[in-house]
Amino acid sequence: MIPYSAGINKPITRMVIVIQCKDSVGLVAAISTVLAEAGYNIVSMREHVDQEENKFFARIVVDHIADQRSLENAIEKVLPTNAVVKVNPLPEKNIVVLVTKEYHCLSDILTRNHFKTLGANVQCVIGNHPDLKNITERFDVPFHLVSHENKSKEVFEAELVASILPYEPDYIVLAKFMRILSQEFVTTFMLKIINIHHSFLPAFTGANPYRQAYTRGVKIIGATAHFVTNELDEGPIITQKIIPVNHSFTLSDLVRAGRENETAALAKAMQLVFEDRVFVSDNKTVVFE
Amino acid sequence: MIPYSAGINKPITRMVIVIQCKDSVGLVAAISTVLAEAGYNIVSMREHVDQEENKFFARIVVDHIADQRSLENAIEKVLPTNAVVKVNPLPEKNIVVLVTKEYHCLSDILTRNHFKTLGANVQCVIGNHPDLKNITERFDVPFHLVSHENKSKEVFEAELVASILPYEPDYIVLAKFMRILSQEFVTTFMLKIINIHHSFLPAFTGANPYRQAYTRGVKIIGATAHFVTNELDEGPIITQKIIPVNHSFTLSDLVRAGRENETAALAKAMQLVFEDRVFVSDNKTVVFE
Amino acid sequence: MIPYSAGINKPITRMVIVIQCKDSVGLVAAISTVLAEAGYNIVSMREHVDQEENKFFARIVVDHIADQRSLENAIEKVLPTNAVVKVNPLPEKNIVVLVTKEYHCLSDILTRNHFKTLGANVQCVIGNHPDLKNITERFDVPFHLVSHENKSKEVFEAELVASILPYEPDYIVLAKFMRILSQEFVTTFMLKIINIHHSFLPAFTGANPYRQAYTRGVKIIGATAHFVTNELDEGPIITQKIIPVNHSFTLSDLVRAGRENETAALAKAMQLVFEDRVFVSDNKTVVFE
Amino acid sequence: MIPYSAGINKPITRMVIVIQCKDSVGLVAAISTVLAEAGYNIVSMREHVDQEENKFFARIVVDHIADQRSLENAIEKVLPTNAVVKVNPLPEKNIVVLVTKEYHCLSDILTRNHFKTLGANVQCVIGNHPDLKNITERFDVPFHLVSHENKSKEVFEAELVASILPYEPDYIVLAKFMRILSQEFVTTFMLKIINIHHSFLPAFTGANPYRQAYTRGVKIIGATAHFVTNELDEGPIITQKIIPVNHSFTLSDLVRAGRENETAALAKAMQLVFEDRVFVSDNKTVVFE
Repeated sequence: MIPYSAGINKPITRMVIVIQCKDSVGLVAAISTVLAEAGYNIVSMREHVDQEENKFFARIVVDHIADQRSLENAIEKVLPTNAVVKVNPLPEKNIVVLVTKEYHCLSDILTRNHFKTLGANVQCVIGNHPDLKNITERFDVPFHLVSHENKSKEVFEAELVASILPYEPDYIVLAKFMRILSQEFVTTFMLKIINIHHSFLPAFTGANPYRQAYTRGVKIIGATAHFVTNELDEGPIITQKIIPVNHSFTLSDLVRAGRENETAALAKAMQLVFEDRVFVSDNKTVVFE
Repeated sequence: MIPYSAGINKPITRMVIVIQCKDSVGLVAAISTVLAEAGYNIVSMREHVDQEENKFFARIVVDHIADQRSLENAIEKVLPTNAVVKVNPLPEKNIVVLVTKEYHCLSDILTRNHFKTLGANVQCVIGNHPDLKNITERFDVPFHLVSHENKSKEVFEAELVASILPYEPDYIVLAKFMRILSQEFVTTFMLKIINIHHSFLPAFTGANPYRQAYTRGVKIIGATAHFVTNELDEGPIITQKIIPVNHSFTLSDLVRAGRENETAALAKAMQLVFEDRVFVSDNKTVVFE
Repeated sequence: MIPYSAGINKPITRMVIVIQCKDSVGLVAAISTVLAEAGYNIVSMREHVDQEENKFFARIVVDHIADQRSLENAIEKVLPTNAVVKVNPLPEKNIVVLVTKEYHCLSDILTRNHFKTLGANVQCVIGNHPDLKNITERFDVPFHLVSHENKSKEVFEAELVASILPYEPDYIVLAKFMRILSQEFVTTFMLKIINIHHSFLPAFTGANPYRQAYTRGVKIIGATAHFVTNELDEGPIITQKIIPVNHSFTLSDLVRAGRENETAALAKAMQLVFEDRVFVSDNKTVVFE
Repeated sequence: MIPYSAGINKPITRMVIVIQCKDSVGLVAAISTVLAEAGYNIVSMREHVDQEENKFFARIVVDHIADQRSLENAIEKVLPTNAVVKVNPLPEKNIVVLVTKEYHCLSDILTRNHFKTLGANVQCVIGNHPDLKNITERFDVPFHLVSHENKSKEVFEAELVASILPYEPDYIVLAKFMRILSQEFVTTFMLKIINIHHSFLPAFTGANPYRQAYTRGVKIIGATAHFVTNELDEGPIITQKIIPVNHSFTLSDLVRAGRENETAALAKAMQLVFEDRVFVSDNKTVVFE
């Protein structure tokens, strides 16, 4: 279920506070007292305690914008050491999108970006093939071609990084980007890379998941949006979606059905992340939908 | 999505605090300070502010049982007047089930009750027909026949009330009870009666929703679990479930498919209510799943 | 569940035969004998008999293209009188899209059209407001403004008809077209107009279904794609989709969630119709998914 | 989507014809001519051609019962060699149910069996633990205890076979039977054993799938009903169901949520199999829902 926190076409004036720290008794009291004393009204509050790991997670929405920095400091003072506190205006992220040849996820992103419903600003699209230059430019978004051909992985990724860094994006969205990224690249943008994998992970990792699904004769196919960390297809899962299939589906039918599912899963994951609803804890996520 | 707060077969030692009152700044701080000072650790906390109605709702789970009454009093002291505060041990409700002839919802309730996974104790089953006496008694649950035949509605309902009252149930579950209850009966058990309606309300109110759905040629049928208030089929909705159908479904096929859906919707609604996840506000519900 | 009968980017070489007639014993034998004698291999065959109405429906896919007209004639000869037989190459429909101001369904249609995955060719977009001219022209599709302002309904619709007729479209898709069409207009394009209604019909007919849903406190909202016939929102339903919602949704959140659902429902309905999977029978549909 | 072919409480008078053979042009014509000449009206017909494997599958429902054997012979005569043809009255299968300790699938089966909506007759329940004897006998169904303790697998399975064989069941349903069966046992009842696996296969094969899912942090859990063949958890999949989960689920919450899903998936699989809607082809199924 996708919760929607913001209005449609009106200017967004809410602020979201995200907190992640060691758990201890009285945290909610301490935090909410800070907010009350500063005169903030809590519009919504979600809190989760991971009792096995003794961790505390909270997402609090308050209804006007004030001095972000001083509020962060005031909250930090009442939390255990090493707490992470961020106060963000509601969705106003910047993103860079990486693509290869498939159009479906990118088109969806470009459309939402164009009509200001993505919750983020697409700064540019980078493709390792030129196929999606045309659709990108139809929406007046810059397209950079960074080909991987005739290059070592190191050189290719250095060029990618050089293309990305000037934008200082909040997130990098892999919208069907079909190159495996090195550990070094991933570390450069740790917990900033969102990928859409075309299977119901952990089933069918690796290449050709639709072929694997076809061969196995599954009755449901999935798509998984996740953060990219060190291991291929092993990062923290943000969201998963499924679609029923049957014996009448050829391999290309599976691919076609999967496209709709991938588009929807990535769109949901982006919304959740851009609205600061997703916390990463070890290799799992806490998601306040 | 049904969250499950309790373990499987182990004794339940958690307590849930539900609060409903007028909203004001600082409520969460005040409440959580009371809990922190009393040494309670908050396991999970859900809060909702209805900004249109200026109402505050909270459900807080803490992880050991103490003196319920004194905790309620301590919390009440920091809330606006007319606040409702209840501190309950996790699911230990008592229920009376009313039925007519259809077995599917009742069988599901009896099975869960038998294996202690209902979250409630079925005190008795009351039928206006004798058809379900046999299945009820197979599970060693008392069955009372209260026939409506050759009686005025007043007399019939007076007998129903007389059968129910000695049990002092927390809730009355209408598990396909096919008599329309009077305003007077409903008032006697206000917000304690849970009904399963065999359509996707507000579509197809009244009798024969499956026939209406069949005639209209819908592609999805629904079931709605709701509290019974004054208006027929108009009470606050707790949960809804749907099931896809198609042109090949005869009317009896629709009824058969609907049964699965009704059973699932009522089961979910009972779980939500018995775990104190449902708040009624005017004619709507706040449900912390 | 959406079955997909065609490959991805390869030229389509299959043909679909649709048959609708009075039922009688031996129809399948007669039809399949015609096909066998003509040397066609049946790739897939779906058949439905409405026993109440004594009607027969069939959709047969064969795997190469031949003389459509002579095959239609050969099949018609073995059917009861008044049978409808059509032999079409797989999706190659022409459509005109009518819009008002909302972009989501139209953008989805334009994207699929651009990448040749719609199963139809968008001949033009007609808007009664100019808002969607820009997005339409970004995809090199003609946009015609036919304003309804300061005109009688008769004049407005006459202008609409005049804009549509030269294209001779197979279908007219109302992609959030917010004007109610007259009986006369509908009759002109009988069973050629596909509409997306933003509710789970028959709940919430008429205007402002999301407000109605909000007020009623439903837990699921729906969208219904249907053919437009004489009665407003009463035409044969092609497909319905739903999305779960909860108490935290404001009215504008419902509208926002509904958009995703409307887009998906209309996309599915178009696919079903363009692939000749939908038969209308009185006010219901037979859909071979 | 579960289609339902039969009425509710009325005597079943339909017959289903299932055919599996090598594909060739004219099969449908040949078969339907046999039926037409014998005076049968086809109520519904589903046909599938696996073009890669050149195989033909058909399920035909006709609306009265005649001489099954002679009809089978008549159809076989017009089919390629080695065709499989079966003519069965609609659901009237006999089954033996194997269980261990978990009650949820068995209770559902016993309830449906009791109210004659299972589509099969439960001949007996065999448990390797005595835990479910009580619930079984409450429904007047025989329970046999065949303990695996202090026995070799050979001896245990020999006892199982000895308990099963006298019943000559059409199918053996493993309703949370937690012993791995040998190749020999499986071969004895080839394509007659239906299992419910508590994961979304092929994810999480083997033991403790819920723990694996918990550790991986998935957002959806699944259940898979499949035929048991030689490889553990690798048999042809009949149906799969999923349920969304989130970070708030403890391991025992996952197990609890999974139970509902397992019950529903096994119920659907049984219905499909008992109504002769499932064909096995190599390691996949063709399912005419």
